[in-house]
Amino acid sequence: MTTTDAVWADLTSRWQDLADLNGTLALLNWDQSTYLPPAAAGGRARQKALLSGIRHARATDDAYGRLLDAAAARTDLSPEQARMVEVARKDFERATRFPSAFVQARSRHFGESYSAWTQARPGNDFARMIPYLEKSLDLNVQAAGYFPEFADPMDYFVDQSDEGMTAAQVDAVFGELRAALVPLADSVIAAGPPRTDFLNRHYPAQAQLRFGEDVIRQYGYDFAQGRQDLTHHPFMTRLGERDTRITTRVKEHDPIDALYSTLHEAGHALYEQNVREDFLGTPLGGGVSAGVHESSSRMWENLVGRSREFWAAYFGDLRDTFPDALGDVTEEEMYRASNVVSRSLIRVDADELTYNLHVITRYGLERDLLSGRLAVADLADAWHAAYESNLGQRAPSDVDGVLQDVHWFAGGPGGAFQGYTLGNVLSAQFFAAAEAANPGLKGDFARRDFSRLLGWMRENVYRHGRMLRPAEMVVQATGQPMNVEPYLAYLRGKYGALLG
Amino acid sequence: MTTTDAVWADLTSRWQDLADLNGTLALLNWDQSTYLPPAAAGGRARQKALLSGIRHARATDDAYGRLLDAAAARTDLSPEQARMVEVARKDFERATRFPSAFVQARSRHFGESYSAWTQARPGNDFARMIPYLEKSLDLNVQAAGYFPEFADPMDYFVDQSDEGMTAAQVDAVFGELRAALVPLADSVIAAGPPRTDFLNRHYPAQAQLRFGEDVIRQYGYDFAQGRQDLTHHPFMTRLGERDTRITTRVKEHDPIDALYSTLHEAGHALYEQNVREDFLGTPLGGGVSAGVHESSSRMWENLVGRSREFWAAYFGDLRDTFPDALGDVTEEEMYRASNVVSRSLIRVDADELTYNLHVITRYGLERDLLSGRLAVADLADAWHAAYESNLGQRAPSDVDGVLQDVHWFAGGPGGAFQGYTLGNVLSAQFFAAAEAANPGLKGDFARRDFSRLLGWMRENVYRHGRMLRPAEMVVQATGQPMNVEPYLAYLRGKYGALLG
Repeated sequence: MTTTDAVWADLTSRWQDLADLNGTLALLNWDQSTYLPPAAAGGRARQKALLSGIRHARATDDAYGRLLDAAAARTDLSPEQARMVEVARKDFERATRFPSAFVQARSRHFGESYSAWTQARPGNDFARMIPYLEKSLDLNVQAAGYFPEFADPMDYFVDQSDEGMTAAQVDAVFGELRAALVPLADSVIAAGPPRTDFLNRHYPAQAQLRFGEDVIRQYGYDFAQGRQDLTHHPFMTRLGERDTRITTRVKEHDPIDALYSTLHEAGHALYEQNVREDFLGTPLGGGVSAGVHESSSRMWENLVGRSREFWAAYFGDLRDTFPDALGDVTEEEMYRASNVVSRSLIRVDADELTYNLHVITRYGLERDLLSGRLAVADLADAWHAAYESNLGQRAPSDVDGVLQDVHWFAGGPGGAFQGYTLGNVLSAQFFAAAEAANPGLKGDFARRDFSRLLGWMRENVYRHGRMLRPAEMVVQATGQPMNVEPYLAYLRGKYGALLG
Repeated sequence: MTTTDAVWADLTSRWQDLADLNGTLALLNWDQSTYLPPAAAGGRARQKALLSGIRHARATDDAYGRLLDAAAARTDLSPEQARMVEVARKDFERATRFPSAFVQARSRHFGESYSAWTQARPGNDFARMIPYLEKSLDLNVQAAGYFPEFADPMDYFVDQSDEGMTAAQVDAVFGELRAALVPLADSVIAAGPPRTDFLNRHYPAQAQLRFGEDVIRQYGYDFAQGRQDLTHHPFMTRLGERDTRITTRVKEHDPIDALYSTLHEAGHALYEQNVREDFLGTPLGGGVSAGVHESSSRMWENLVGRSREFWAAYFGDLRDTFPDALGDVTEEEMYRASNVVSRSLIRVDADELTYNLHVITRYGLERDLLSGRLAVADLADAWHAAYESNLGQRAPSDVDGVLQDVHWFAGGPGGAFQGYTLGNVLSAQFFAAAEAANPGLKGDFARRDFSRLLGWMRENVYRHGRMLRPAEMVVQATGQPMNVEPYLAYLRGKYGALLG
């Protein structure tokens, strides 16, 4: 039908434009984090605001909404087209459900709250943040209220990053996980730390970067469609079609930081670089959820990059690259040092195992705040209590406690953390399914062959983009709903062997 | 008046948005030339087209045109405001006078012509380009026809890049210049070349870059508001407020190329970095014309960078930086080598002196084509004849003749070249005035002190942005209209002394 084909052509052209605007905004951000001259920050902020406004106007245009309704009423769409319309309508709802006065008030408040936090944190002044945080919490409860289809505000926030998932499901996963991880961490830590003295020696930056780039090239990261640059905080960003870049930072007295952040961001990029070509520029052309995205980065960082087989393949090269620093170190020592477990207060510095307990702690506190079980005024104390219970640690001050992460002070409590640990859980579940389908998979790594793992992930996860809902994808790929068993089996296997 | 103040607020906000869109487009281009992954070119082209379309829609919006008319009718504007409106209306006319079908047809044709040239040039096949060039010429004559206020099509094109200048003025300047330069070049070349063997030795790239950046930092280029990156073709670009970047390329067997392209682009950037603060984000916030812009880059590249005093200041450093390459070289030899004059066929490789004869040749041919005195079919022969007459050289083929430059094949004949030589002429006129106001100015350079020259240029040229018309600025700054005497005096002085 000519009329409806015109509708479809109009829709796809709008989607392409939205994707191109997103890429342009990503470039403005990428450049700001990498190469922007210091005096240009103000002008850049204005450019970003202008482009965001243009994008928002197009994403919330009435005519676009009518097109989506018209497309949704069609019965002749392919499954892919139907899903494109479904996802686009969901995005449209998200962008239009809030009244614009509410959007502005919320954005202004979060800006003020962030500013206050930058001063309150060094001053260890949580009291100052209480009124800000109370208002943030109130605004986030209101925000969820614009989506009455979610009974619990936390359901709204969980669904925002992991479509179709409920807070009750996260509760169940995190409950099981906590019960297993607390004693596991205790026993690993009780066994005492491995040798790590050599990690503090001198590792020249350029050589570190070259080493990391060699590894991810072998992983399958395509440098014809991306690049790596230096930033304060590593990230992955998609700047356009076939332009998926990663960033890292390098510490000359720590070879671990740059390497694993490179492997992590490359894991995100492998996802984006392997979405179906015909989805590019459509609502399906990207990762499906925070948890699934994080599952890919955690897999390439931890399940691959911290494995015995990885070090069997790469330790020789690393020692040749840094003969002064690693001359007296064995492959086994490097393997153990890259898997050290310790109690810590700072989430972003935590090891693979205890990191989840940091996330579970924050998720639990968010859950209590949003449900009204916990008052903001009691949050700092609740933080310390939860850390003692989950991590056996108590921060000497709120700087390393409730004031530690920016999230609650720049965006309010709600759904900002759980995706990290859902990603860990899923990484092991996907990996176990990939191994079942590819016997001897880990042996490949010792030969620097990652093609079977990449191929399995491409076929079962990456290529689908946003075509499948996350839960559907997990069942289709692994034969079972998301569950913690593969992750616990992985952790127990690894740390059990390390404990001897 | 509230109503008119609202008009002014609306206008300034539109101007700021246009400036921010220009900066965003400049970023898309800069990134494409520096860091874009190779596979991303197609997506980037689409992003640029989208942003160009958004900018064009805003620059040609009817409501914007009405605002400009309303502002032009006001009598309470300051001189700066009145000039902003004048410049903006001129830009608006340029953007709206062509029917959009004409814009599209012209842009499509130039695209096809450029494609054909990329194949015809290596094949030395000018015949293939004749029909393209005939149509390009026809389209450019038509384009000028939409501006009937210009009697001669060449006047339209000259005014496009150098506001207020006529082709007759350029004819007069170029006639005088040619008459003086041809014999001067002859006598310099007849005297034989200086020693240049050391220019082909090995100069490591990083050290070259660092050396050039040290020099332009001392010139006054502000790295807090800019940076230098590598590209195939050096350029200067303004990516936003206080973000004026330059690019260069480095040849490890030629220390001249990177240094002088750095000094040249820094000269453009010094202009942009020193425009009045209150003009930023308005129609006056940038360089006023191609010729005046080029006068700044040529001044810092040639009148400063190729001076005896420059080498008195920097040769020691350069030799310390490259002891292997320059151990047996004297300051005088470096000075002479940086001022070598030779007959050449390729404009972009020409020396300071004969470069102008390349430009005068192209300008003359454009002039004849646009006036109908020369048919496209005869252009290749006319090229050879003009080169014999102006440069005493005949290219062995059209590859190094009429097919050499991209300009006529990507945008048609008309006004693309004369600005380069107008810049050379003005660079000497400004410099002579700066010297008259600052006795002993050149002596500063030997002490690496460029503050008096930069200060004079800032006050008399840079800070005005587009406030003054180019011809007004020249008279105000130098006391006389544009004329070739200072430039000829400079060239005669320099090469006379070199000839001994």
